[in-house]
Amino acid sequence: MLNDDLKWRYATKKMDPAKAVPAEKLEKILEAIELAPTSSGLQPFEVLVVTNNELRQKIKPVAWNQEQITDGSHLLVFAAWDNYSEARVDAVTDQMADERGGRSELLDGYYTNLKNMYLPRDAQVNYEHAARQAYIALGFALAAAAEQKVDSTPMEGFDPEAVDEILGLKERGLRSVILLPLGYRAEEGDWLVNLKKVRRPRDQFITEVN
Amino acid sequence: MLNDDLKWRYATKKMDPAKAVPAEKLEKILEAIELAPTSSGLQPFEVLVVTNNELRQKIKPVAWNQEQITDGSHLLVFAAWDNYSEARVDAVTDQMADERGGRSELLDGYYTNLKNMYLPRDAQVNYEHAARQAYIALGFALAAAAEQKVDSTPMEGFDPEAVDEILGLKERGLRSVILLPLGYRAEEGDWLVNLKKVRRPRDQFITEVN
Repeated sequence: MLNDDLKWRYATKKMDPAKAVPAEKLEKILEAIELAPTSSGLQPFEVLVVTNNELRQKIKPVAWNQEQITDGSHLLVFAAWDNYSEARVDAVTDQMADERGGRSELLDGYYTNLKNMYLPRDAQVNYEHAARQAYIALGFALAAAAEQKVDSTPMEGFDPEAVDEILGLKERGLRSVILLPLGYRAEEGDWLVNLKKVRRPRDQFITEVN
Repeated sequence: MLNDDLKWRYATKKMDPAKAVPAEKLEKILEAIELAPTSSGLQPFEVLVVTNNELRQKIKPVAWNQEQITDGSHLLVFAAWDNYSEARVDAVTDQMADERGGRSELLDGYYTNLKNMYLPRDAQVNYEHAARQAYIALGFALAAAAEQKVDSTPMEGFDPEAVDEILGLKERGLRSVILLPLGYRAEEGDWLVNLKKVRRPRDQFITEVN
């Protein structure tokens, strides 16, 4: 059951550098990310799977020296589109037409309207919208990792511009949004592993409006 | 397997108004939302479960008349905190202390630093940050619904200020972010149900950095 996996997972604070996530488990996690729905199907972000040690060693100091970045076996970097553009939207429209039986007035009209709405907007507004979509995929990645009994640690605590620089993201029109190291919890040294999962009282979090 | 469920799901366009999601399935979905991790554990959003017909009839016209809002049996509304505040952060800190064995310098220091960072920031920046967290929970909700073979349709296409007004969210310091009707796909009339799930080519979406 999904919820049992979600109870098992936690933001792992200490990973075992001797254990690596096997390729088939990584693949399940990447597939879940691909399956995440996004606004108008644009998937306005990319995911980098960083195993290169030198690059991870460079990222760590601009991410509060969080050891999971190098102790995990894979570092996923979710990087959102810095803006929407005609080319980016058209590529999705073309692919939809290719894979769903051709162009139609409905399809073209939908994405023309979308461009009319998105393209005049401020780049920051569009980036924020794109970044939100990456968080849906983050949710799927966390769930998939938990199902595979792979540990993970979602991280917002890093200098995005420094990470963009290290990974050459700016030239690709991307901005780093979330880091997600994958690995296995260490036997010792994780202060969080035995602490209760704390959630706000349900009556302050969920309201039924009948 | 999670990914089989994620392949089964789609943004249902036509729901059967005669079929209602049973309470035990709704509960699994709400529990998954509660289990979603959020930045510093703040859970900076709330979820409204709207079954009231009159309110859903009022929401529909400010959401492009999307019929799933009233054809589904439950409408989830994810509403983010409009800002971070001392009271909101302190409530979480107090609860952490209560449930994890008392106050500590580490705990207090962590959340004091957080307040020093968040409280001087512009409300819009804080709201955007809070809204992103709601999208992680949206991801969990979509996965949980799919596991329960409950259909759902994530919607950003609505007038958030109008929805806030209808549900009285502003007075509660909340801003609506996403609508998620839950229900069951209709036997007929859904243009999307038989179309291929389209995703960007993997080599343009995922990059291995070895």
